[in-house]
Amino acid sequence: MSSKMAACIFCKIIKGEIPCFKLFESDKTLAFLDINPLSRGHALVIPKFHGAKLEDIPDEHLGEILPVVKKLISATGAVDYNILQNNGRIAHQQVDHVHFHMIPKPDTEQGLGVGWPQQKTEMDALKALSEEIKAKM
Amino acid sequence: MSSKMAACIFCKIIKGEIPCFKLFESDKTLAFLDINPLSRGHALVIPKFHGAKLEDIPDEHLGEILPVVKKLISATGAVDYNILQNNGRIAHQQVDHVHFHMIPKPDTEQGLGVGWPQQKTEMDALKALSEEIKAKM
Repeated sequence: MSSKMAACIFCKIIKGEIPCFKLFESDKTLAFLDINPLSRGHALVIPKFHGAKLEDIPDEHLGEILPVVKKLISATGAVDYNILQNNGRIAHQQVDHVHFHMIPKPDTEQGLGVGWPQQKTEMDALKALSEEIKAKM
Repeated sequence: MSSKMAACIFCKIIKGEIPCFKLFESDKTLAFLDINPLSRGHALVIPKFHGAKLEDIPDEHLGEILPVVKKLISATGAVDYNILQNNGRIAHQQVDHVHFHMIPKPDTEQGLGVGWPQQKTEMDALKALSEEIKAKM
């Protein structure tokens, strides 16, 4: 085990060394309540495979994530909600183990605040960029 | 075809009736640049199956979503980024066809703005809530 894993609070939760309000568990996936919620029912779904950012998680450890998020939506009765996965401190990631937030949005005050600093649409630049990205896909 | 699908801008993009800056396509999944980007490389990954909210999409149409998001991260070279999927107007959803945003966060000004109105942690209430949700999972 790497020292990063040994120090990881979510790896400790997976191993049962730190308690959590567990909602779902399988061999690859764990879901539990966020203990600093933005709204009632705010929950996290994580792969048990340790990785800081989404690109660090092998595809075969991601297959259950969205189906489990769907189970949470149904079980919490969330009507409006945001699914959010942050990567990097600047992008608001606090724990360096990939986690998907399911955040109910019951009203304008509670739940995720979304800031949307939309840039000017520049079709020529977007066309060039799309070709550049496509060539690397 | 329902009238909702007929009117859906993303269904029209899937059918090729409206152009897009396409990045990836398979039988179940489409990825293209957001033409009102929050940052360079801001892209969308959508299931071809029409549904307004995440719970409307069958699991078998969701399996490729996160692997394709990973391809976008790699191809755009994004280092810090947010993955966001909004459900409902109040949660900032603008198009009623499920779409996952991959939004690079190159600096504090560009990319997604994250508002985090954290609530007080009430362990007893969380415990009761976790039991209530778990019973419905």
